[in-house]
Amino acid sequence: MARLKLFGSSISGNCLKPRWVAERLAIPFDWVEMDIIAGATRQPEFLSLNPSGQVPLAVLADRRVLAQSNAIMLHLAEGSDLVPADAFDRAKMYEWLFWEQYSHEPTIAVRRWRRAYLKQSDADLDPALLTKGQAALSRMDNALEGRRYLVGDRLSLADVALVAYTRWAPEGGFDLDGLPRLTTWIAHVERALGLPPTR
Amino acid sequence: MARLKLFGSSISGNCLKPRWVAERLAIPFDWVEMDIIAGATRQPEFLSLNPSGQVPLAVLADRRVLAQSNAIMLHLAEGSDLVPADAFDRAKMYEWLFWEQYSHEPTIAVRRWRRAYLKQSDADLDPALLTKGQAALSRMDNALEGRRYLVGDRLSLADVALVAYTRWAPEGGFDLDGLPRLTTWIAHVERALGLPPTR
Repeated sequence: MARLKLFGSSISGNCLKPRWVAERLAIPFDWVEMDIIAGATRQPEFLSLNPSGQVPLAVLADRRVLAQSNAIMLHLAEGSDLVPADAFDRAKMYEWLFWEQYSHEPTIAVRRWRRAYLKQSDADLDPALLTKGQAALSRMDNALEGRRYLVGDRLSLADVALVAYTRWAPEGGFDLDGLPRLTTWIAHVERALGLPPTR
Repeated sequence: MARLKLFGSSISGNCLKPRWVAERLAIPFDWVEMDIIAGATRQPEFLSLNPSGQVPLAVLADRRVLAQSNAIMLHLAEGSDLVPADAFDRAKMYEWLFWEQYSHEPTIAVRRWRRAYLKQSDADLDPALLTKGQAALSRMDNALEGRRYLVGDRLSLADVALVAYTRWAPEGGFDLDGLPRLTTWIAHVERALGLPPTR
């Protein structure tokens, strides 16, 4: 019988997000490692599944296809304790998920990618990536005042989505040292997800 | 008794999205028009509500605050027919909502803003905004083949979110003329939402 198939790259935080959710919820899945640097997502076979050529991509057990890391997470986690039962908390989780894709990933993940994988020098990188990304990290640090998790009092998809690139922010040249609530939260979410500590 | 308050600008598609949802679902609300060009979102009173200085912002009847246009829509529309009852259709709606914020708004809305409101000339605008935005419009046109709506067989938040800036794409210098399925869909969603036709 077919089971969930996740196409992704292990160096992409976006790809790891649905993987972590499947692992935590004990959803059986096959992982298809995609070499995004070698252009695996541009091969005809993959493009026939996802014309946008993006990973992660989920092929569900019934062979239907779903893209967008946060949409895949929401689908896999529906009805689980990773989605807050309270309507307002659930809405705040959505707020973090959209903020992550609009204001966090395009600065922090993009600068990490260009710096750590495309080997661009700091001088060649748009300075706005650093200032906007650092502001996003400060915003998270402020939001975590007096809290263990971003939403409510337990782990939710908001934490899963945001830890993915926040824990790797130093690879993008971002400084976490002045953000003690954020570093405490990173370590805490890493433990909750069974990830090796980055610090 | 307090009721929903929506802070927004009528020239912002992101702000109109939750307004349209409230109107369609007959949720009573007060609209607070924000002059974003004059810097209304940078005033201390507003920043005390939303430190990020962004609209739309919803202050719920119980005075709790919610940001991010798509998160506000999801909260207001929960349990309504704007959210598909089928789990896979609901996931595809999420997919479109995240795609909208990551790949559509940052090109189409941004180029419209810079061109129509900041009065930047085409020569001064990053050429990638035009090519990426036009590719996003083509992707929508392809997805609408044989369909009246983006997801399932009825209007959903995916249509509401995506029509907001798609109908204004010509103000950003984007060409809709070669995209007949898209222009048919725009007119159809505008009618469903009771909006004046843009074409």
